Formats: sequence, C-alpha cells, structure tokens
Amino acid sequence: MHSGTQFTQGLRLAMDNGPAWTVEAVRQARYHVISSDHLFSQDNLTLLTGCPDAPLRAGERRLLVIDKNVDALFGAQIREFFTFHGVEITVLSLRADEAVKHWDAVSQVVDAMNDFGIDRRREPVLAVGGGVLTDIVGFAASIYRRGTPYIRIPTTLIGLVDAGVGVKTGVNYASGKNRLGTYAPATATFLDRSFLRSLDLRHISNGLAEILKMALIRSQELFTLLETHGSAVRADRFQGTTGDLADAADRIIAEPIHLMLEELQPNLWESSLERCVDYGHTFSPTIEMHALPELLHGEAVVIDMALTTALATLRGNVSEEQADRVFTVIQALGLPLWNDALDDTSLLEHALRDTVRHRDGLQRLPLPLGIGRHCFVNDVAPSELRKAAWLLRSCAQELPHAGSAESLVSA
Amino acid sequence: MHSGTQFTQGLRLAMDNGPAWTVEAVRQARYHVISSDHLFSQDNLTLLTGCPDAPLRAGERRLLVIDKNVDALFGAQIREFFTFHGVEITVLSLRADEAVKHWDAVSQVVDAMNDFGIDRRREPVLAVGGGVLTDIVGFAASIYRRGTPYIRIPTTLIGLVDAGVGVKTGVNYASGKNRLGTYAPATATFLDRSFLRSLDLRHISNGLAEILKMALIRSQELFTLLETHGSAVRADRFQGTTGDLADAADRIIAEPIHLMLEELQPNLWESSLERCVDYGHTFSPTIEMHALPELLHGEAVVIDMALTTALATLRGNVSEEQADRVFTVIQALGLPLWNDALDDTSLLEHALRDTVRHRDGLQRLPLPLGIGRHCFVNDVAPSELRKAAWLLRSCAQELPHAGSAESLVSA
Repeated sequence: MHSGTQFTQGLRLAMDNGPAWTVEAVRQARYHVISSDHLFSQDNLTLLTGCPDAPLRAGERRLLVIDKNVDALFGAQIREFFTFHGVEITVLSLRADEAVKHWDAVSQVVDAMNDFGIDRRREPVLAVGGGVLTDIVGFAASIYRRGTPYIRIPTTLIGLVDAGVGVKTGVNYASGKNRLGTYAPATATFLDRSFLRSLDLRHISNGLAEILKMALIRSQELFTLLETHGSAVRADRFQGTTGDLADAADRIIAEPIHLMLEELQPNLWESSLERCVDYGHTFSPTIEMHALPELLHGEAVVIDMALTTALATLRGNVSEEQADRVFTVIQALGLPLWNDALDDTSLLEHALRDTVRHRDGLQRLPLPLGIGRHCFVNDVAPSELRKAAWLLRSCAQELPHAGSAESLVSA
Repeated sequence: MHSGTQFTQGLRLAMDNGPAWTVEAVRQARYHVISSDHLFSQDNLTLLTGCPDAPLRAGERRLLVIDKNVDALFGAQIREFFTFHGVEITVLSLRADEAVKHWDAVSQVVDAMNDFGIDRRREPVLAVGGGVLTDIVGFAASIYRRGTPYIRIPTTLIGLVDAGVGVKTGVNYASGKNRLGTYAPATATFLDRSFLRSLDLRHISNGLAEILKMALIRSQELFTLLETHGSAVRADRFQGTTGDLADAADRIIAEPIHLMLEELQPNLWESSLERCVDYGHTFSPTIEMHALPELLHGEAVVIDMALTTALATLRGNVSEEQADRVFTVIQALGLPLWNDALDDTSLLEHALRDTVRHRDGLQRLPLPLGIGRHCFVNDVAPSELRKAAWLLRSCAQELPHAGSAESLVSA
C-alpha cells in the first residue's frame, strides 16, 4: 500500500470584476473484496465480522434485496442465518435481468428503503444476486439521501469476478446500456463461490467471458490456465470436487480479480479513459442492447473480443495461430464466437460512435498484442470492421462447434 | 489554499480463509463560483473564458436547460448571445418548481442529453434557472454516463446564495424532500444578480431566508447589515440603484456565500453531520413537503428558524431582546414567522425522527447562541417543541404585521 500524491484542499477567493471562489477538496474511498465460501453457514461469521468497515451485530436490522431466483434457491437458508445471529432482516425479492434493468427496478428498491426507514450511514443495504441485481441496488443506494452504504454478495460468476469487484453501478435507459449510474463502491463485496453450484452452465460461461478478457489483455499465464482447466472447471461449476479442480478454480477466480483491481485502483473514477479492462466493451454494449434478450452480457463481450481479435490479426498484432487458440478457448468455455449483428456494419459504426462519446472524443480501443498484452488504437475504420467480421466468420465456420449463442445454450 | 492531509491509496491483498483485497483511492474535487453581472451581454466574455476548467469556444455546441419562466423573460437574449459568439445551443425549456421536482423531470433532461448525443467529458450541460432547476439538471448530469459535467447559472436569489454554492443535487421522492440525489459539484457556477430585477419580491425574500440563516449562525455583522439595509435592498431587488444600495447588495450576497463555502469546503461530502448550515433545515423539509405548494423553500426554512429561535430562548441561549430583533428582521424581509403546521406536534416529531435518520442516529440540531454563533444539541423533546411553538405564536401575534405566508406574499 503506497500513499503520497499530494492533493489540494482549501478555499481561494479572488477579486476581479466581482468575487470569484475556487473550492478544492479531497475524498478518500475505501472498499473491501473478501472471499469466504458458504457465507450463510451458521458457523461462518465472515458476514458479521469479516469487514472492519461494516460490522453487523446481534440486535441490528438490515434491508436485504435479493434476486427472485436466488431467493427461491437460498432464501430460506439466508433467513435462518440472520435469525440465528439475531439480526432482523426485511427482504425485497426482485426480478433482476437485463430486460428489467431500468429505473422502475431502482424505484422499487428506493420504496423498500423508504418503507424500512433506513439509516443513511449505519444500515448498509445487502444486495444478494448477480451483476444486474447488484448494479441496480448499488445505484439505488448511491442516490438515496445522496449515498447510503451497501454490501454486495454476488451469486453468479460474472458477479464474483466483474460486477462485484469494481465501483460502477447503473441501469439501462432507452437503448443505452448502463446509461444512468454512479461510481459508488460497495463497502464490502463478499465472494462465495458455493453459490455457483446451482448456476446453469450458460451463466458459468457468461462469467468466464470476463475472466478470459483479463487473460487476453493482461496475463498469458491465466490464458494457459483457462486453456488447460477452463472447460473442466466450468463443468464442475467451480466447486472444486477434486484437489486439482479446487486449485484451478481458486486461481481462475482470484487471478482475474487481482488483475482487475490492479487496473481499477489507480483509475477508480476513470480519469483516464484508456482502460484495458474496457476490452470487449467497445461494440458489446450496442450489440447486447440490440440483441436483447438473446445475449447475456458476457456473450456480447466475447463476440466483441472475437471481432477485435480478428481485427488485431489483420493488423499483424496477433498471429493466426494465437487467434486460433483464442477462438478454440472461447468455444471450449461454452461461449459464442459469432452473432449476426456483426454482419451489420452500420450497427458497429453506431456502436463505435457511441463509445467515442463515452471516451471523450477518441476510440481508445484496447486491442490485444499477442496473448496477455494490449495496446490502444484510435484509427479503426468501418472498412476494417467489415474485413474483421468476414475473417471471424470464416474462422468460426472452420471450428468444430461454431454457431450462435442459442446453439451453445445447452452446451 | 492549504494542502497537506495525507490520504491512502493502493491495493492490499491478505490471505486468511481466502484472498481478501482492500482498495483505497483518493478523488480530487474542484469547482468555481464566479460573480459577473450581465453575463449575457455580448461584450461579457465571462461565460466563455471565465472558468479555467470549462472554456467555451466558437464552433462548439452546448445543451442548455432553462426554466420555462426564465426562458420567456431572457431566452431571446441568451440565444442571441450564443449565436453572436458562434456557439450552437440546443435548448430544453423546462417547468421547474417544487411540485415537479421529481424523477420525471430528471428523465426529461436525460432524454435531451441522449438526443443531443452529449460528450460525457467535454460538453457540460448549462443549467439556467432557480435552485429547483439547477438541482434537477445537476442530478441528471451527475448520473448520465456516471457523471457528465454541468454549469449553473442561477437566476433567483436562493439559487445565487444557496443552491448554486454547494455540491448537492437532487429531487423529491414520495414525501421525501430531496430524497434522491448526489454530491456533484458543478464545474462552475456563474452568479449574475442582474437576473433578480425580474424576480417577484416573494422570491427575493425566499433567498433572503438562506442569507439570514448564515447571519444567525455565523455572523453578527451580516445580521446587522440585514437589519439596517435588508428591507431596502429587497425592495431594490439587489440592483444597486444607489451607491449605498449597491454596496449593501454586494455584501449581502458575497458574505453569506463566503461563510457558506468556509463551512462546506472541509466537509463537502458531509463526513461530519454536525453542519451549522443545516440550521433551519431540521423541521423545514417535512413542513415544506407537507404544506406544498403553500410554502417556498426559504419560507419553510425561516419558520424552522423562528421555531428554533424560540426554543433557544426557552433554553436561555438567546435573550428575549435578541429573539425580538430576529423576528423583526424576518418580518422586515417579507418572510413568515408562523405556519399552522407548527401546531401539529406529531408532524414536528415525525420531522425530527426523519432528520435523525438523515444525521446518523442523533439530532445534531444546530441552535443559535445569541446572534451569529451556534451550538449543536441532541436532546430536544416533543414537549419542548410544543412550548417553543406556543412562545413563537405569542411573539408573532405581538408583532405588527405577523401572519401566515399568504398574507406576506404581496408584501
């Protein structure tokens, strides 16, 4: 942990035509990401005492917002856990998928906070569910009384390795993916991979897409791990039923989180818009919103990564052999290589324009350099996108099980 | 301008049962409050070059959100100004009063930002209107793509001395005043008191309430200024038609702003909830929402201050003579001393409970000590509120022009 950079604080008054003031102030942010399996076993005290900034004591109460599907599977155990430890919980059970990730869902959480009469400093909202649920609850909490703390307990793989790790909250608006939101770190995120035992394989794959992203841009070692153990760990749903599988599952979760946090920490509020963690997120927001409800978030991201891997191959930044390895791993992880939206060059151009608006006037497109490294480019032209799509299509057709997302749902 | 406090930044990984990460990061905030009369005179370049962090150049474009009433009065001049300087503006003319200060209004601004295709870093939204309008636009901008810059040009006195100075945005939700919002400083606020020439006297008084607040808790000198010149400056609508009136108007605007910024700067995100600038804001949010649309914000605040001045008199913290001076100034400024909501002790208790939830479990009630100083108390009981209301009622009845807000509207 380093400290040091000097920041400026104070009030300055200048008199020109009239008084003019400059206000400078500095805000410290801190959050925790804490791994602990079987969080809701009665003898596991991590939720109560594991986070120094969010102790939970007998006699206190909490509002808990939970994904409806998770509630059906784990709701009884969760309620028993809190009852056992003397914590009174009020539960809001919420449908939470991309199609309802809108203001109305935020409003439901706000209503529950109002009804609960939440204390804006001492009663963090508990959010239990996938990335969509934690994004919605995080957004609601961050604007309720201008900021009420919240705690995330992700129950999906993408929640564990991606949504639960960063500081972004948000909901979709009109056709804009996460168009409304805030930077608001959860006081703590508790990672419990035992939830994954009930997850269907398509949603396991969905999370593997974000893990693969970190591998492609930051770590050849993580890529090799996915190449070697990804498929088996996926089939095992990260439950570690053998020693080897347990070891691989641990590393396949912990390493991308660490890499991601290394990228986020110095740039938590995106003062730099050259973010390698945006890899796979240039075309995917538009593709995902366009294809709803066909594609899950990770599926849209992986299609973006396949397209840009093809593009990097055309530029000579990724060799054909490397691209083949990438495409093969994508398939082995149960993820799609192709979506017909890629045929629509005008959609891709629209996506690029929207991303440019999001990245202060430049593309700042992260592109892979081989496997495990990256660069940023600003000069991608529509004609190049068309060629990359053609190349990807031909590569995808040559691979044994290529196809659309649907054909892989049951994989 | 001082700097110095050390903040912590970095990523820490601990291995207990599983990996646990702590992320620490620091965010620098800076904003400007710049006075300049006749902002939209073609030879006034302050809007273009006055703020180092928000230059506006010929050939650029901006989205401008303006209060409907202000648009009717000043819209043509404002459009001409931008055309003259080669800036293309798109205008959203919005009704903005407390009764429509809700999500729907935010949504209208978001729609306009979407239609405009705003660049989230380089095209600050311009908000021209009173505190309600700047609160709505500030909220919309702060959540659009997780934060788009905005600039405030207040056109009311309360906007100039209060809403335009701080970093709070927000809208009402259900019966909760500003229940949803963010801390999001405008890059710049430009203060132009020439707008006040068209303001009705009731809205001049509305702003004087917040000025009086700063006087009562922080500055006997400012109180004396209001006592001596407040009524005349009000009648002159701060236009400075004589040298004395101009001097008084300058000071009556600049001094409370400076005092307010001194209070806000070290506590911009309210890490301390003992905020003397919350004086008058303990009971008023509930009274204001309860009495809508009867009371303007400043009227509700002044009723709260009258009640708590009476309470402080009962405690011996304010002498009867001082209370008389305060009540006399309130009336001279065209503000109400009484609202029948004060008869409803259960409403006051409800307000106090809600404030306690907002202030982390304690009342943290700022109370005047004489004139110009304050203390905080946590032990106000319902019976004491009832007695204070009785005392205030009897004082109000003894004063020559006492009455409800309505009787003062035409004052």
